[in-house]
Amino acid sequence: MTSPAVLCSAMQRHRALFKQWLLVSGRKSRASSAHLPMPPTLSKHNGQLQPRRRQFHWTTRSRSQDVEFTHVRYNVQRLGFAAVTTEDMMFFDSLLPGRVVTDPDILEASNVDWLQTLRGRSQVLLRPQTTEEVSQVLRYCNDRNLAVNPQGGNTGLVGGSVPVFDEIIVSTAQMDNIISFNTNSGVLSCQAGCILENLNNYLEERDFIMPLDLGSKGSCHIGGNVATNAGGLRLLRYGSLRGTVLGLEVVLANGMVLNCLSSLRKDNTGYDLKQLFIGAEGTLGIITAVSILCPRKSAAVNVAFLGCDSFEKILDIFKESKSMLGEILSAFEFLDYSCREVVCEHLKLRNPLQEAPFYILIETSGSNNDHDQEKLNHFLEKVMTCGLVTDGTMATEENKIKAIWALRERITEALVHDGFVYKYDISLPLERIYEIVIDMKNRLGVRAKRVVGYGHLGDGNLHLNIVSEAYDQQVLDSIEPYLYEWIAQHSGSISAEHGLGFKKKDFIYFSKPRAAVQIMQQMKAILDPKGILNPYKTLPPFSQ
Amino acid sequence: MTSPAVLCSAMQRHRALFKQWLLVSGRKSRASSAHLPMPPTLSKHNGQLQPRRRQFHWTTRSRSQDVEFTHVRYNVQRLGFAAVTTEDMMFFDSLLPGRVVTDPDILEASNVDWLQTLRGRSQVLLRPQTTEEVSQVLRYCNDRNLAVNPQGGNTGLVGGSVPVFDEIIVSTAQMDNIISFNTNSGVLSCQAGCILENLNNYLEERDFIMPLDLGSKGSCHIGGNVATNAGGLRLLRYGSLRGTVLGLEVVLANGMVLNCLSSLRKDNTGYDLKQLFIGAEGTLGIITAVSILCPRKSAAVNVAFLGCDSFEKILDIFKESKSMLGEILSAFEFLDYSCREVVCEHLKLRNPLQEAPFYILIETSGSNNDHDQEKLNHFLEKVMTCGLVTDGTMATEENKIKAIWALRERITEALVHDGFVYKYDISLPLERIYEIVIDMKNRLGVRAKRVVGYGHLGDGNLHLNIVSEAYDQQVLDSIEPYLYEWIAQHSGSISAEHGLGFKKKDFIYFSKPRAAVQIMQQMKAILDPKGILNPYKTLPPFSQ
Repeated sequence: MTSPAVLCSAMQRHRALFKQWLLVSGRKSRASSAHLPMPPTLSKHNGQLQPRRRQFHWTTRSRSQDVEFTHVRYNVQRLGFAAVTTEDMMFFDSLLPGRVVTDPDILEASNVDWLQTLRGRSQVLLRPQTTEEVSQVLRYCNDRNLAVNPQGGNTGLVGGSVPVFDEIIVSTAQMDNIISFNTNSGVLSCQAGCILENLNNYLEERDFIMPLDLGSKGSCHIGGNVATNAGGLRLLRYGSLRGTVLGLEVVLANGMVLNCLSSLRKDNTGYDLKQLFIGAEGTLGIITAVSILCPRKSAAVNVAFLGCDSFEKILDIFKESKSMLGEILSAFEFLDYSCREVVCEHLKLRNPLQEAPFYILIETSGSNNDHDQEKLNHFLEKVMTCGLVTDGTMATEENKIKAIWALRERITEALVHDGFVYKYDISLPLERIYEIVIDMKNRLGVRAKRVVGYGHLGDGNLHLNIVSEAYDQQVLDSIEPYLYEWIAQHSGSISAEHGLGFKKKDFIYFSKPRAAVQIMQQMKAILDPKGILNPYKTLPPFSQ
Repeated sequence: MTSPAVLCSAMQRHRALFKQWLLVSGRKSRASSAHLPMPPTLSKHNGQLQPRRRQFHWTTRSRSQDVEFTHVRYNVQRLGFAAVTTEDMMFFDSLLPGRVVTDPDILEASNVDWLQTLRGRSQVLLRPQTTEEVSQVLRYCNDRNLAVNPQGGNTGLVGGSVPVFDEIIVSTAQMDNIISFNTNSGVLSCQAGCILENLNNYLEERDFIMPLDLGSKGSCHIGGNVATNAGGLRLLRYGSLRGTVLGLEVVLANGMVLNCLSSLRKDNTGYDLKQLFIGAEGTLGIITAVSILCPRKSAAVNVAFLGCDSFEKILDIFKESKSMLGEILSAFEFLDYSCREVVCEHLKLRNPLQEAPFYILIETSGSNNDHDQEKLNHFLEKVMTCGLVTDGTMATEENKIKAIWALRERITEALVHDGFVYKYDISLPLERIYEIVIDMKNRLGVRAKRVVGYGHLGDGNLHLNIVSEAYDQQVLDSIEPYLYEWIAQHSGSISAEHGLGFKKKDFIYFSKPRAAVQIMQQMKAILDPKGILNPYKTLPPFSQ
């Protein structure tokens, strides 16, 4: 048992730490960041704040050229689609003059996924600018039985956005117009190829924000976000796209334009078809326009970064934050010590806190900074006093907030520098969420270079990442299907927010009953009877 | 032009009013209600606070017996379903001993809708208690080609919950068990027949609340709420059921149990089938269990009730409230003067404010009462000073909050006492939302006893209600399809939250393109090929 004297001493230490905190972060001083050391800028190389965006790293081209063809590595048989002919190319050239890409160097970036783990061999990339052009492309491809791979920013992590064979890539990159924004209702309508960060910048100038935020915001398209039902960093506060997306315009496989681009918050007239396309990963239609409900930009944003010595305590801190921060809590993220190692080692980020087994990032967003800081201070005092937190820092200035966020957001990027990444995106009941990281560490031992766990704790979403020096089938066989069986046993989901894409489609039965998959296949058969849209993705074949 | 002196005098008057307000509602006094007169209790008859629930009023049985058969009034032809035989009754009796109802007096309440405008002629009501029993009932009915009418609390307003002919009524009334509640995640799982108010009471004891709240909370079932995608009073804050419902268990027409009762906040494994059943009004399957994400109960709730002299000013007040109340704004409702008249006349409610063309109800919910009252006071000071508001009162005590809410929530009930109600539930762009009320008043003139407009302004949702002494086909013909054409011209929805049910199904094309309706019909054909589930509802027949 811990003696009362030791407990008392620990409380005093916490209180002393907390006083330092308040001294520089309280109402009167209005300091923007508190506790030593101050959050660093993101990069020590050039002294400048790096953009938070996830970017393509094509600097070492030999690396992407090393990526094996998907159909070889995964032993996939090509389905009976037609091959692109000279006549087809003539049609595309006449429809999209100057926007038919066949240059192998440009195609390389669209054939290989961002993780550099998959490679298709498409020889044609189309860049339509209008819904009508998408419609004509699909009508033609459907008639000709040509397979199509819809592509947004190609930032997907399960191979949903790159071709497996020679599918024609239909890119939304040139469909990037904002259609309208209503400052009364906060409803934005735009084409599918708008980059998330650009939309957010547009809205911030008008005192609004996008209801979602991802590490890949600098590249990903809103159409792709909707097609993959992206979750990200703001879901805890603003909910999922299933609630915030108010309308979609979608082109079906046969070229028919389905206009459900409502900008109404409520519309109960028949079945809500747009929901079918949210998260369907381009297998049921190509999303060409989106209408989405955007919240007001918060006048005050604060971020606290905390050290914590056990996962159980993280859960206690989470409960406390929901109670004491309530309506201003906008993010509750966690990372383990291995994540800290990897971002510090590969991206040279500095961690402002002492070493700890776990770190928590808490963000608050509200309309009154004094109120928010008072709530946050009360909360921090409580979690320090109870010994739930061992160390912490707080930031209110934008660049310092970004620096803290980088420690969480750039983990994915840092891992790519570490070796071949086996990427898992899991939902589990909160109580069990970190067990699988420990289990996997024990199971893989020295065969794994690194096993890390981080994610959106507030949403019950764990990113489990395993790294080996290079792709290793034996390591993969040790992970799968063991991991999926573990998740199924604990009533979790094998894909929380990344989707199934190419890599996970065969494992769907670990999360969905056979009857449900059959209905999904029937939906697919109705909307895309020839199966030309994003084949080899999302659903296993009928025969299974 | 208004002279500066007049303006100055107006501002002084507003300031004076506002000071009175602060005197009794500010931080120090902690008074629960401010400004004269105080909100009254709901009923002067017995001096007791009436429950807020919408209740059946079967006191005047002759009234419900006056309701004409739906198939007669609307000239509907019965589809080719089988009729219930003695053998069928023997099967039901053996499956559900003591839970097969044939008593005409009990059936009366299930054959007639709450508005007393529709009447079916079902002779059998079944009360299963388990999913397995529902499954066996549907498998049997599907084999026998017997039509089925799923029924929850029978509080629907478009005839979705009552039979049109002799459909077998399958009630969820005896499926009212709570399955689980997780205090870490806030996820509640329960059977479909749980009454909304009971669930909310259960949660409040555990410091949580349901994410939806309706006037009919005392009768409506959560399964019915989900089947109709109910909106209600908390949607502005907690979003729609499409985001908060995490899982569903559904029995399909052929008896197959589709278990998608996930309690995970994120799950991107294939198409999100549960979305199909949300808002499908029981035409695609019977919902037997629901899992739903529940927010924490707010420590502080405040309500302001304001008078306003033009609809344009309401929009300005709404924008101001979103900016100044931000994260604590939990409701923004409005009603016009005619609504005030009808609740005062028929329910004897007292309006605490002076006469005004419009009234606004603003609710805030937050974790710190001092902070919330400060925000609310700043907001009220601003809208008073600008002359946007002419009069107001504020309440923080529960019974006084309920009394103010009653003025808004009991309008539907009051209207039923006023005569035959032609009920419309419309979404429109905020800027045009009240135009149609004025237009309809002018159009109908003395033929309408009353034309009233109220609703969830924060969601762009207007309830337009027209009353005549008795059902009058000529009045109806003057309203429809004129109203629907008007809505379509202004890109609105002919049903914001009530659904299409029986009454609105033929008007779906005013809100959805033909291509979309065709896809809906294909979905229906997949999931219910014989069409036994809630026939004559939601979708027009294939032939149209």
